Amino acid sequence: MKAVGVIVEYNPFHNGHWYHLDETKRKTNADCTIAVMSGNFLQRGEPALVSKWARTRMALEAGVDIVIELPYAFATQKAQNFANGAISLLSALHCEKVCFGSENGTIDNFESTVEFLKNNQQTYDQTTRQYLKEGYSYPKATSLAYSSLSNHDTYVDLSKPNNILGYHYVKAIHDQNSSMKAETITRTSAGYHDETFSHESIASATSIRKTLFSAEKNIEEIRNYLPSSTVNWLLSYYEENQLFHRWEDYFTLLKYKLLTSTPFELANIYEAEEGIENRLLTYISEATSFQDFMEKIKTKRYTWTRLQRFCVHILTNTTKEQLKPINENPIATYIRLLGMSQKGQSYINHVKKDIDLPILSKATGFSDELFMLDWKAARTYLAIFPEPLRTKLLRQEYATPPIRFNEEQRVYL
Amino acid sequence: MKAVGVIVEYNPFHNGHWYHLDETKRKTNADCTIAVMSGNFLQRGEPALVSKWARTRMALEAGVDIVIELPYAFATQKAQNFANGAISLLSALHCEKVCFGSENGTIDNFESTVEFLKNNQQTYDQTTRQYLKEGYSYPKATSLAYSSLSNHDTYVDLSKPNNILGYHYVKAIHDQNSSMKAETITRTSAGYHDETFSHESIASATSIRKTLFSAEKNIEEIRNYLPSSTVNWLLSYYEENQLFHRWEDYFTLLKYKLLTSTPFELANIYEAEEGIENRLLTYISEATSFQDFMEKIKTKRYTWTRLQRFCVHILTNTTKEQLKPINENPIATYIRLLGMSQKGQSYINHVKKDIDLPILSKATGFSDELFMLDWKAARTYLAIFPEPLRTKLLRQEYATPPIRFNEEQRVYL
Repeated sequence: MKAVGVIVEYNPFHNGHWYHLDETKRKTNADCTIAVMSGNFLQRGEPALVSKWARTRMALEAGVDIVIELPYAFATQKAQNFANGAISLLSALHCEKVCFGSENGTIDNFESTVEFLKNNQQTYDQTTRQYLKEGYSYPKATSLAYSSLSNHDTYVDLSKPNNILGYHYVKAIHDQNSSMKAETITRTSAGYHDETFSHESIASATSIRKTLFSAEKNIEEIRNYLPSSTVNWLLSYYEENQLFHRWEDYFTLLKYKLLTSTPFELANIYEAEEGIENRLLTYISEATSFQDFMEKIKTKRYTWTRLQRFCVHILTNTTKEQLKPINENPIATYIRLLGMSQKGQSYINHVKKDIDLPILSKATGFSDELFMLDWKAARTYLAIFPEPLRTKLLRQEYATPPIRFNEEQRVYL
Repeated sequence: MKAVGVIVEYNPFHNGHWYHLDETKRKTNADCTIAVMSGNFLQRGEPALVSKWARTRMALEAGVDIVIELPYAFATQKAQNFANGAISLLSALHCEKVCFGSENGTIDNFESTVEFLKNNQQTYDQTTRQYLKEGYSYPKATSLAYSSLSNHDTYVDLSKPNNILGYHYVKAIHDQNSSMKAETITRTSAGYHDETFSHESIASATSIRKTLFSAEKNIEEIRNYLPSSTVNWLLSYYEENQLFHRWEDYFTLLKYKLLTSTPFELANIYEAEEGIENRLLTYISEATSFQDFMEKIKTKRYTWTRLQRFCVHILTNTTKEQLKPINENPIATYIRLLGMSQKGQSYINHVKKDIDLPILSKATGFSDELFMLDWKAARTYLAIFPEPLRTKLLRQEYATPPIRFNEEQRVYL
C-alpha cells in the first residue's frame, strides 16, 4: 500500500480542500491519504472554529483515510517549524509522497529554490538582516531579500503564503533526509479546472468563517461552498456547544492572564522578543475587545499573525523553555491518531511494525513533554465553556479513542 | 486630636460593626476613627461582596472618619501577618489606640497571654510541631499546644477566631515597639447591651451574604440587620454591576489558571507547601464548581480557609518571591487612602508632617512592589465583568481619588 500525505487545518473543510484532496489522489495514485491536521489552535494564531473531533469527521467523510494531529509545538509556529513537524510525521508514517497546494504549482521550481537558497545562504541572511534593520517584519524582510537575489522565472515567488509553506516542506524533506517525494497542485482559483469544482463552488475558509461568526449564521449563504458532511457537522457542533470558537470568546481569559502577569513572567513566554510584551501590557487595560487590542498593539514590525500567535502562547502559558527542544530539533516525537477509515486502519496495520514513534490512540498515560503542550492547548480551548459541559468535554479529550469510519457503508464504528 | 484605629473587612458593614464602632468611640473618647479595611480579597480567602469603594461609603456614612486599605500582602494572610500589617498602618497614622472585638473582652488577659507565650516560646513551638506531626491543621495544632500549657482563667482562649486576631494585634504592638494602646470589646451576642442594638438587630455577615447570594436576593429579610446606608449602597452596586462577588464567579478563571499551569509553576505560588498544589491539579479537571472543588481537595490537614487563601493567590498569581519581603518584615510601606470625612481630613492635615510612609490618594505613578500586588488583586477582582464595564472599572481603580464625605451635611464632596 502506498500513502500520500497532506498538511491541513480544515477550518472548516470546504470544496477547495475537496478539490485538493481529489487532485492529490489522482496525481499520486496513492492507496491511502493521510492528513496531518492542526489541533485546537492554528498557524495564524487563532482558535479552531470547531473541535478537532468535528474537523476529523469532516475529513473522513470527504475521503481522508487517516487524520493525525499536528502537535501544538508545531501547529502554532512560524512556517519553518510548522513544516518540519508535519513532514517528520508523514515520514514517520512512511508516506511515499506529500502533496501541497501552492501559487506556483511546479514542483521543480520549489526544488531549485531550495537549492538556490542553500547555495546563497550567507548573502540571503545578510540581506534579510538589512531589511529587518530598516523596520520590516520578518516575513517581509525575507521576501524582499529573496527577490533581490533571484528572478521569478525558474524560482518560486516567496511573497505568496502557500509558496512559503511549500518551500519549507521541500526544505524539510531535504534537511531531514526523508525519502518522501513532494508534489504540488496550483491553488489559485484559475487552477480549479475540474467541472465538479466550478468557480461558483469555491470560497475561502475566511469568508466561510465570516458567515459563521455573523449574528445571523445564515448557513444557506455558504452551503454551496461546503460538502454536506461539513454542513452537518457544523450544525451539530453549534447545536451541542452553542458557539463557533473565535478569539473574542477568549478575550476575558487573555486580559485576565496579561493583567495578572509581571513583565518578567511574560518575557518567558514563547515569541516574547525585543520587549514586545511591554507593548501588550501597556495596551491591554484599555482594550475592550480582542480586535480593539490587536489594532492597538499592531506595528509595521510585527505582523498581525505574529502577534496573534504570541497571544495564543500567552493564553496557553507556553514558555520559551517548553519549546526549546523543538527549536533545536523540530521533529515530532509521537503520533496522535484522531481518526481513520477502514482503509486507513489497514494501512496502519500494514506499516505499524516499521513506525518508530509511539502511536497514541488515547491521551491517557502518556507524558511526553511536547504532548503536555497539546494538553494545555486543549484545556485552554475548552476553558470558555460553562459547567458541566466543560468538565464533560475535558473528560472526552482525555478518553476519546480515534474515530473509526466505515467509508463504504458511510457509518461510524 | 486623638485617633483610634479599628481593623475591619465590612463585608458588608452591618449593625454589629455599628455597635463595635460606637462602643469604640465611647470607650476611647477619640476625636477621630480610622478603619484599616481589606481591599478586594479577604482574610478567609474570598472576594469581597462589593468593591472597596462601596464598602468605604458604607463605613463613612456609619461614622468612620478615615478608611485606608489593608494591602493585599497582609489582607489575604494568616493572622500574624494580617495583624502586623494593620497595626503598622495604624501606628504610622499615629493612632493613640486600637480597639478590637474579641470573645474574651478583657485587654489584660491579652497582655498576659502575649507575655506568657513569649516566656514559653520553645515549649509552645515544640508542642505545636508535635500536633502538626499528628496531622492537625496549623490553627488547630497551635490552639491545642496552647491549651496544654495554660489555663483559661487569666489567659485568652486561643481556639476562638477573634481572640486569635486580638492576640496577634497585641503581639504586633509589642514586636513593633508601637506606643499604641490596645482595647477590646466583647463580641458575643450576649455582649450587645446597648438598647439600639438589640439581639434582633444583629446578624452575622455570613448570614447576610447568604441572603444576598440567593436567587431571590430578598433584601427585606436582612434590612433589620443593616444600617440604611449599607442597604442603599448594596442596592446601587447590584444595579450598576449586576452581581455580588463570590468565589463561583471566579471559578472559570481559577480552573483555566490551574489547567494551564505546570506543577513547578504552581509550587512558586505563595502558600504552596508540602505538594498541596498537586492535590489541586489532580482534582480541578473534574470539579464543576468552586464548592465542588473545595469539597474534593479538603483534608483534615488543610483548613477550608487555608485552601481558599491558596486559591486566591493562584488566581492573583502571587508568588512566594513577591511576598518574601512581607514574611521577613511584615510592615506596611505605604498608606492607600480610600475615603475620609471632614474630621478625617482635619486629622490627616494635623499629623501629615509626622507620617513617614507615602500617602497615596490616587494609584497612578506609584510603583512600590507591594502595591503592585494590590493592582493584581484589583485586576483579578474586575476580570469577571463584561466589556466595556470592565475597562471602565479598571480605569476608575487607577484614577479614583479618596472619597470625601461631609458628615454634618451627609453629602459627598
